[in-house]
Amino acid sequence: MDCIFCKIIAGEIPSLKIYEDEKVLSFLDIGPVADGHLLIVPKKHYERLDQMSSEDITAVAGVLPRLADALVRATGAEGYNLLQNTGSCAGQVVPHVHFHLIPRVSGDGLGYRWPAKKYPEGKDKEMQQKILSELK
Amino acid sequence: MDCIFCKIIAGEIPSLKIYEDEKVLSFLDIGPVADGHLLIVPKKHYERLDQMSSEDITAVAGVLPRLADALVRATGAEGYNLLQNTGSCAGQVVPHVHFHLIPRVSGDGLGYRWPAKKYPEGKDKEMQQKILSELK
Repeated sequence: MDCIFCKIIAGEIPSLKIYEDEKVLSFLDIGPVADGHLLIVPKKHYERLDQMSSEDITAVAGVLPRLADALVRATGAEGYNLLQNTGSCAGQVVPHVHFHLIPRVSGDGLGYRWPAKKYPEGKDKEMQQKILSELK
Repeated sequence: MDCIFCKIIAGEIPSLKIYEDEKVLSFLDIGPVADGHLLIVPKKHYERLDQMSSEDITAVAGVLPRLADALVRATGAEGYNLLQNTGSCAGQVVPHVHFHLIPRVSGDGLGYRWPAKKYPEGKDKEMQQKILSELK
């Protein structure tokens, strides 16, 4: 398996670990957008979030409140973004599911681009029906 | 409780629902940044992710793979971003924890600003120790 996160999980590549249990690893991003920027990954290799088992995604999620709280206290951040990118079009670079936890302060220039719009009349209900029809 | 999401959960304000169970509600964002942009919220009111009980955050997370899969199929997206903003500095507008699921295609101009940097020597280990000392 030529996956950099699998190698980090296996201890073949060093990382600055923050949290580890049977299913989950968290470590510092080596290319942070803010000091303390964390990655949280399932130990099992999945490329995409939609492939994750319920067991693995809930294991990852269960750790997030504690990590976020510690991150805020440690960095003095006023808040944070939790971000998971699936697909290269969405900014995913390493093809092993990872969650970014990014500490934020006002005026830091980070954040998600937000060109909010409104649906044309009827388009929202059409979208709802399309999604519902694909939901298993 | 003067919370717009609590009112949506209570059915006092209409929404276009995609998923509902005892603990979780998902509905279309009325100000989408892309067609099909979903919100996923715990029914219990929490302002911040770090306040969420393990039970509630795992309930929310457990639904995400199915929702993401349906969203991709319904919209023809190539990927997506999962985003949770805690704090107004991080882009949080409604003070009830919510997760954005945003379908993405190449060249859509969305995504997170990414001014990645490197830690000066020793700063990464210092940050690791600070976070570890706050982790309970």
